[in-house]
Amino acid sequence: MADNYMNKWLFPYPVEMKTGGTEDFIITVTVKEECPGGPPVHGASEEYLLRVSVSEAVINAQTVWGALRAMETLSHLVFYDQKSQEYQIRTAEIFDKPRFPVRGIMIDSSRHFLSLNVIKRQLEIMSMNKLNVLHWHLVDSESFPYTSQKFPELHGVGAYSPRHVYSREDISEVIAFARLRGIRVIPEFDLPGHTSSWKGRKGFLTECFDEKGEETFLPNLVDPMNDANFDFLAEFLEEVTETFPDQFLHLGGDEVSDYIVECWVRNKKIRKFMDEKGFGNNTVLLENYFFEKLFSIVEKLKLKRKPIFWQEVFDNNIPDPNSIIHIWKGNTHEEIYEQVKNITSKNFPVIVSACWYLNYIKYGADWRDEIRGTAPSNSRYYYCDPTSFNGTDTQKNLVLGGIAAIWGELVDNTNIEARLWPRASAAAERLWSPAEKTQKAEDAWPRMHELRCRLVSRGYRIQPNNNPDYCPFEFDEPPATKSEL
Amino acid sequence: MADNYMNKWLFPYPVEMKTGGTEDFIITVTVKEECPGGPPVHGASEEYLLRVSVSEAVINAQTVWGALRAMETLSHLVFYDQKSQEYQIRTAEIFDKPRFPVRGIMIDSSRHFLSLNVIKRQLEIMSMNKLNVLHWHLVDSESFPYTSQKFPELHGVGAYSPRHVYSREDISEVIAFARLRGIRVIPEFDLPGHTSSWKGRKGFLTECFDEKGEETFLPNLVDPMNDANFDFLAEFLEEVTETFPDQFLHLGGDEVSDYIVECWVRNKKIRKFMDEKGFGNNTVLLENYFFEKLFSIVEKLKLKRKPIFWQEVFDNNIPDPNSIIHIWKGNTHEEIYEQVKNITSKNFPVIVSACWYLNYIKYGADWRDEIRGTAPSNSRYYYCDPTSFNGTDTQKNLVLGGIAAIWGELVDNTNIEARLWPRASAAAERLWSPAEKTQKAEDAWPRMHELRCRLVSRGYRIQPNNNPDYCPFEFDEPPATKSEL
Repeated sequence: MADNYMNKWLFPYPVEMKTGGTEDFIITVTVKEECPGGPPVHGASEEYLLRVSVSEAVINAQTVWGALRAMETLSHLVFYDQKSQEYQIRTAEIFDKPRFPVRGIMIDSSRHFLSLNVIKRQLEIMSMNKLNVLHWHLVDSESFPYTSQKFPELHGVGAYSPRHVYSREDISEVIAFARLRGIRVIPEFDLPGHTSSWKGRKGFLTECFDEKGEETFLPNLVDPMNDANFDFLAEFLEEVTETFPDQFLHLGGDEVSDYIVECWVRNKKIRKFMDEKGFGNNTVLLENYFFEKLFSIVEKLKLKRKPIFWQEVFDNNIPDPNSIIHIWKGNTHEEIYEQVKNITSKNFPVIVSACWYLNYIKYGADWRDEIRGTAPSNSRYYYCDPTSFNGTDTQKNLVLGGIAAIWGELVDNTNIEARLWPRASAAAERLWSPAEKTQKAEDAWPRMHELRCRLVSRGYRIQPNNNPDYCPFEFDEPPATKSEL
Repeated sequence: MADNYMNKWLFPYPVEMKTGGTEDFIITVTVKEECPGGPPVHGASEEYLLRVSVSEAVINAQTVWGALRAMETLSHLVFYDQKSQEYQIRTAEIFDKPRFPVRGIMIDSSRHFLSLNVIKRQLEIMSMNKLNVLHWHLVDSESFPYTSQKFPELHGVGAYSPRHVYSREDISEVIAFARLRGIRVIPEFDLPGHTSSWKGRKGFLTECFDEKGEETFLPNLVDPMNDANFDFLAEFLEEVTETFPDQFLHLGGDEVSDYIVECWVRNKKIRKFMDEKGFGNNTVLLENYFFEKLFSIVEKLKLKRKPIFWQEVFDNNIPDPNSIIHIWKGNTHEEIYEQVKNITSKNFPVIVSACWYLNYIKYGADWRDEIRGTAPSNSRYYYCDPTSFNGTDTQKNLVLGGIAAIWGELVDNTNIEARLWPRASAAAERLWSPAEKTQKAEDAWPRMHELRCRLVSRGYRIQPNNNPDYCPFEFDEPPATKSEL
């Protein structure tokens, strides 16, 4: 039994190469459970046993998802030998399973729009990295590309343009495409802050005021006084659950305090409402009020969902005990581990993104090398291990995994792929493979290099992750194809 | 008369829009000088007069290069109006010419290979930014992709693989492709350091030694004792001048001192040679010896060439008075200006790259914003103006221009385009437009944004250069095309 290493230097078995020949190579796949009609559920088995000889491969798996992972590994055993200019295969016997059930990428389609093609390509690369969660931060202050059937005014007003939207068919296509690659799609609708782009819904946002008390142009916070907003949210989220089959539903909750002064404290109606409710000047109580209403909406959803919240809902408010807490803060690994320890000590499951904010870029191999003088200083993010804290087994089991985030402020179709990969591969390896086998980035580098070249040869834009190197077959860029302007 | 601003906000004329209609739009181009058979020569006129009404455009230029620039500007006057969903044209009368004669991009095809398609795309984008010089850092320590006809052992041994080379036809194609876009191609063969990849030439490199006196595996410095090396270089450079028609020839000269201890000081034969020549322990005298031999080779070239050297040849040695000095050092604009002042005070023409090392990346809009804590700290590089020093007009006239560099350590086909653009557009604007019209990055941003979207719509991978935004027509990524592995 061994773990999945796709590297000839580190590969723990005697390697018997298959060369040349024209005889068939037979792959036998046995899956115990029937293929489910939907996407993988949380915690579904992905383990597999793979035996490869020079003439055949035998795959045994509990689920179709395990078989998919095995097929990916099998493809990694095939390699091109530059000397003989032939394809060869490494023989092996591999038992393999993931360390964490949640291994994801977060994309942000609000700050810049991401096309269907680009999202699909990321899903393909994710499955080649054995990642299983797409966290889709669909909307934010800047634009509302999600198309609601019930509330078309949301994208009608909130999208950048009528072309910058995901149709209902687009969304179904992403979910189906992800499913075939063993990937769940967890949608995020960030509430109650980061909501400027919901402006198509009249009365949904509070009026926000500048220091002089005049109205500002960018309300970014839900109006909690208006009961109709909760009715609307209930109906909207019903539709979301009918659209996205995943059991998890991300409802944001981050950075509310950034907007509180201008949108709540300076708003006379809100102050009056707080007085009536007995909150006094304590805006946290108003936040709690909003979240309690939101929890109750989630509880009553016809299709049951487990809510995920960004960590502020834990840090500042009182999360529903059913919630998963998503950690995004912390400038050092130690600060991040401390938060994991704290949150799991209160019995909440956690997902960690703070280690892997891949939109932050630095010159050099930041997945492996210390890069000085930048904050957040999570360079060397290969070294992040979210269970590295003093805690009980129960606490460690509450660490569901990690999601590498590529926020969209400076990222769009032009640069997401090369910026994300192979940097996210470093996170993917740490999230899949056992901690004791993934201690040193220098041991990982040959694997990273081989994986990069393999994916480059498959046509993906995987950038260099180290000093000068080359791939047997390089990526090439076709001549430019004009769009309409 | 006005300068070339392609932006409707800043456009200094009353704008009369042409809408709809089916009548012909007539473009009349008058060029005074006959079209030259070769690429643009240094200092060739690029000025033009462009008059655009709703029904016609009239272009007058001294040279075909000026007419090319005018055509580019004309294309920038056409825009897509999102409201009417129609193409419109801005009317204008524009007299325009470049501020500096050398406005370039340096690419590095040694650290990572760059495909012909990728180089051509950069040339296309360069001409859309009115840049006129491709500085092609062809070979370096890591690989030798240039194919010499006379000395095929160079790429035979020094290229990454037989597929990682530029054939003679490839090189001609790049030069011809550049010419049609008004771009000169200046090749660089970096000497005497950065030469490991010349290992195919027996006896060309000195033996280098580690601290224990045992041979190291990576000699990176030419052997100046061997007279055959100068005969070889003379013949090699003759071929280079027959291959590249440009009057300028870049011969490197940087970072020699990095290799001197291990390759010269620790090499007994070199020490003996230095003794015989009366250099004592002074390795600078040996450097001078090498460069004098090199200058004399350049002087005797059948096709006359003006040599360019990196600044160390000025800083440490005695450059041939015919040389151009290329500045790459300096952590702040002030340090860079000081060097320009110093070098031009000695009557050498200079080209500046130090302001625009675009391979260094940082999170944020580094062309415009101060990015803390990174070195070299040339963020806000829109603000670099290489003539910003106290000096005579003669000195300022010796500033030929600038070349934005994208070194290849972490850059290849997958990421060069989005990493280079639109960041290089900031340098391009400063190098083309008058200093007094390009003082504020915030004024430039609308132009940068419009240019980015225009080039995105033409199918180029121009990344966001600011916070959230969108283009009327976004770049899209086609599905992956598998290569051979």
